[in-house]
Amino acid sequence: MRCHTEKIRVRYSETDRMGVAHHSSYLFWFEVGRTGLLRESGFNYREMEANGALLPVMEYNVRFQVGADYDDDLRIESWITSLRSRTVTFSYRVLRDGELLATAWTRHLCVTADNQFRRIPDEIREALLEYCE
Amino acid sequence: MRCHTEKIRVRYSETDRMGVAHHSSYLFWFEVGRTGLLRESGFNYREMEANGALLPVMEYNVRFQVGADYDDDLRIESWITSLRSRTVTFSYRVLRDGELLATAWTRHLCVTADNQFRRIPDEIREALLEYCE
Amino acid sequence: MRCHTEKIRVRYSETDRMGVAHHSSYLFWFEVGRTGLLRESGFNYREMEANGALLPVMEYNVRFQVGADYDDDLRIESWITSLRSRTVTFSYRVLRDGELLATAWTRHLCVTADNQFRRIPDEIREALLEYCE
Amino acid sequence: MRCHTEKIRVRYSETDRMGVAHHSSYLFWFEVGRTGLLRESGFNYREMEANGALLPVMEYNVRFQVGADYDDDLRIESWITSLRSRTVTFSYRVLRDGELLATAWTRHLCVTADNQFRRIPDEIREALLEYCE
Repeated sequence: MRCHTEKIRVRYSETDRMGVAHHSSYLFWFEVGRTGLLRESGFNYREMEANGALLPVMEYNVRFQVGADYDDDLRIESWITSLRSRTVTFSYRVLRDGELLATAWTRHLCVTADNQFRRIPDEIREALLEYCE
Repeated sequence: MRCHTEKIRVRYSETDRMGVAHHSSYLFWFEVGRTGLLRESGFNYREMEANGALLPVMEYNVRFQVGADYDDDLRIESWITSLRSRTVTFSYRVLRDGELLATAWTRHLCVTADNQFRRIPDEIREALLEYCE
Repeated sequence: MRCHTEKIRVRYSETDRMGVAHHSSYLFWFEVGRTGLLRESGFNYREMEANGALLPVMEYNVRFQVGADYDDDLRIESWITSLRSRTVTFSYRVLRDGELLATAWTRHLCVTADNQFRRIPDEIREALLEYCE
Repeated sequence: MRCHTEKIRVRYSETDRMGVAHHSSYLFWFEVGRTGLLRESGFNYREMEANGALLPVMEYNVRFQVGADYDDDLRIESWITSLRSRTVTFSYRVLRDGELLATAWTRHLCVTADNQFRRIPDEIREALLEYCE
């Protein structure tokens, strides 16, 4: 199984008054992670949208171990834990110097620009297979 | 069981290029919901933090049925589905004119300002009981 | 001159590790303010967009006096300082219990859905006149 | 004069329903830019804060030429246009493939952790001199 890696540095605007990254910020990073995974697999999500294959988020789950601080260098690992004809589930790990900070998954449904269910295009499914757990 | 209700109007800044509210925006609204629930129960979260009882998010889960549009008037319902000595789980429903758009839960751990585990103060636990499922 | 007022409560997610509202958060509130002004004047910005009259931000300026804290109740005052055939400038004041926290302005250009310059529709211009300084 | 450069890719979460980057997103990038400039000059802003030299934003101004799209690769250029004993003004340019998308400046006041005015530490002022216009 292949795993995609992105490097992220925690922005000041992503912190909150508790001094750490706000729990919503991780969703921005996961979005960067799965866009990067798609790009690495040969697909540009902007083009996918232009071609009528959107992947809106249907459900997400994020679980924290340790908070991320401002200016931390993080590694976002992304891979796929379920790939079906119309849905795909990405999983993520957030690491800081090898320490696991958070785990997560996001489940997506493939839809057209008019928000109708559709199959994930075959060439994309095939390219994603190597990222499947 | 008591349920706390907040009214939210979707801000332009909360939408994304898909035209609907970005999936992270819901977390902002749930934060408004549980802060409102605490206030309604007699506790101000800002004062709780000043008194050394913080409730960082340990895990969250959000599930979407229908997207929320810009300028939609939404109702955020918040209640409690688990209340233990050191953890509390809030649950949420997002409604638009009676239609269910999303459901969610957030699990919190009670910690001191130094990030040490602590019991949820008794008076807060007692006040929260009526919001428990 | 008429001035539109919105009430805002500072969200946790709008704060940063300095403990106060992040300087970008004010832009969200101003957006709420001018949308509210338009609504009060009889125009729904969502409908304006659907009818091909968009008002993207061309320039903005925000000046801070005092920081806004989490959970503060703020008053956002919005009015118009320039109204020309194709551009409009909104001005804002942020107040907490009568104390001035920040002042700002945002300058907007009227464009079609295809991003072409166009005149601000006459009926909107007329309705906005009473908010002009 | 030295100019600091950061590369940014526009995130999905930074766009709005107009399809382009929301006008507030630029402030996040400028924050990345000036943090990077400080780092390049030998100072870590996280450590500066820990040492009691904070640089809250007093005023900002952003002016747009062309909108930035989702997934665009942008270059954020940052330099200094005013450096006084207690205040510093950073200026910014946002470029896409050499095309100028936006210009901006942010004015900062140096304060202690208790929010008292203070002089910018001499070693920082000296290191910043080469970025001055």
